[in-house]
Amino acid sequence: MRVRIDLAYDGAGFHGWARQPGLRTVQGSLEEALATVLRVPSVQVTVAGRTDTGVHARGQVAHVDVTQLPTRRAAKGNSTGSAAKGNSTGSAARGNSTGSAAALEAEAGLARRLNGVLDPDVRVRRLSEAPAGFDARFSAVWRRYAYRIADRPEAVDPLARGHVLAWPRPLDLDAMNHAAGLLLGEHDFASFCKRRVGATTVRTLLDLSWERDRAGVLVATVRADAFCHNMVRSLVGAMIAVGEGRRTPEWAARVLAARRRDPAVTVVHAHGLTLEEVGYPPDEELAAQAGRARVVRTLSVNDG
Amino acid sequence: MRVRIDLAYDGAGFHGWARQPGLRTVQGSLEEALATVLRVPSVQVTVAGRTDTGVHARGQVAHVDVTQLPTRRAAKGNSTGSAAKGNSTGSAARGNSTGSAAALEAEAGLARRLNGVLDPDVRVRRLSEAPAGFDARFSAVWRRYAYRIADRPEAVDPLARGHVLAWPRPLDLDAMNHAAGLLLGEHDFASFCKRRVGATTVRTLLDLSWERDRAGVLVATVRADAFCHNMVRSLVGAMIAVGEGRRTPEWAARVLAARRRDPAVTVVHAHGLTLEEVGYPPDEELAAQAGRARVVRTLSVNDG
Repeated sequence: MRVRIDLAYDGAGFHGWARQPGLRTVQGSLEEALATVLRVPSVQVTVAGRTDTGVHARGQVAHVDVTQLPTRRAAKGNSTGSAAKGNSTGSAARGNSTGSAAALEAEAGLARRLNGVLDPDVRVRRLSEAPAGFDARFSAVWRRYAYRIADRPEAVDPLARGHVLAWPRPLDLDAMNHAAGLLLGEHDFASFCKRRVGATTVRTLLDLSWERDRAGVLVATVRADAFCHNMVRSLVGAMIAVGEGRRTPEWAARVLAARRRDPAVTVVHAHGLTLEEVGYPPDEELAAQAGRARVVRTLSVNDG
Repeated sequence: MRVRIDLAYDGAGFHGWARQPGLRTVQGSLEEALATVLRVPSVQVTVAGRTDTGVHARGQVAHVDVTQLPTRRAAKGNSTGSAAKGNSTGSAARGNSTGSAAALEAEAGLARRLNGVLDPDVRVRRLSEAPAGFDARFSAVWRRYAYRIADRPEAVDPLARGHVLAWPRPLDLDAMNHAAGLLLGEHDFASFCKRRVGATTVRTLLDLSWERDRAGVLVATVRADAFCHNMVRSLVGAMIAVGEGRRTPEWAARVLAARRRDPAVTVVHAHGLTLEEVGYPPDEELAAQAGRARVVRTLSVNDG
């Protein structure tokens, strides 16, 4: 069975999502915790949005394939083999009937045990048997990020300094939204992407807009079918140049049209960026979406 | 002239507000930064709400008396004496006309320089010449705190883990609000206070209520004329016992009526507590309020 894991993390302490030998990564930590709790030698997790070093997530989604959910009995048992491989008495009925009270209990129990093993900077928020055809990466139809900037002293909150960029000069919200509007839609975002051999940089930018929240913090909503590497932080860097009045909104459109990196576009700090949500189609379309995306997206190294 | 300082801090790295030899405190850090920027040997800051070790603030208010605000010229000059003592050419007009563009610029400049000297876990959010009669401590008519609890895995946000208590069991919002209602009003809160010799424990609890925010986090709003030591955290501890079903709401009222510490009331963790706002009367009542409070409150060691 396939398990969907909704998770959140503070990116400050991780070298990004992807497992790397000798480095603390979210994938590495989660896979280790799963292996411990499921009592298997190793597991492989698939994720919706691979985040870079320092980037946070509130609504990250991953999946892992297990033989079945460990039941309370199996989890508390001591050495009769891997819980992930199942036990023989009654657990099939308890663990596998999706949505039943026993299944919900098994899911909540596994989430609880994972959180007991994981450090507090990464949390499993929900764990559930995935519907048929679900693939955390390929079934996803969009990823939504937020980028947060406190551009005046009144808006700087020390309690949020780990995930809000403090900017020393005021930014012009309207100018940034003007630029944002010019970047929407399907384009080749090569100007805002770190090139990777063999990877397409065509993406569909579904939402790009700025607003001030109640505390006065500028929040960008950035939603696309997928992102190439550095794309959100480069887009934000370009819009900051516009917000400061150093560039016009039309300049941002010209950079996009040029389809090559412009040295005037800076990649802003990772810590202002948070993956907020991943969108999936209705259950009956999950498999078809995954099939389509697998064909298109395997050309592209990064789903952002 | 008296300067009002609105500030925010992450309490994790401080041994509370009050200056203590050899320990990093908010008062100590702020006074040192002020002395540096004002080029005086030392300054003394008065605060609205003295917070304990680990307690945060978003809306803390303090004041400090200075000869006048340093002007840009004085601040950038090198050795012609203390900016706080003023300079002679034109600075009176620039620094002292409240609300003028020059005064606003001087205020913003001082805030900026303070933030340049302070560590990022404490920020000056606003700095302004105080109205006549203003006293950060004695003019205050109420202090408002928030206590935040994530009582289910879905509500635990690693990015907020420094100021939200993660509680391992779900809490009953209605039961907690029932108990809260029984504690409102003017009472002797001795049952919820750490006793201090010669200090009254009579306080007026103006607001005490719980709600779930959009992320599912339980947020207590706790507002009183002033607080005695440990009062908010003890009240929250009692309401958690009610929210877990270990105690009835009426038990909390009986604890209050007993006017002595009950070992069943625990003082919850400091890191869930944040001073959010301090209330002051209209400018024309500031001095009268300060006079009244000074008489009553000097009996009481802590304004919380």
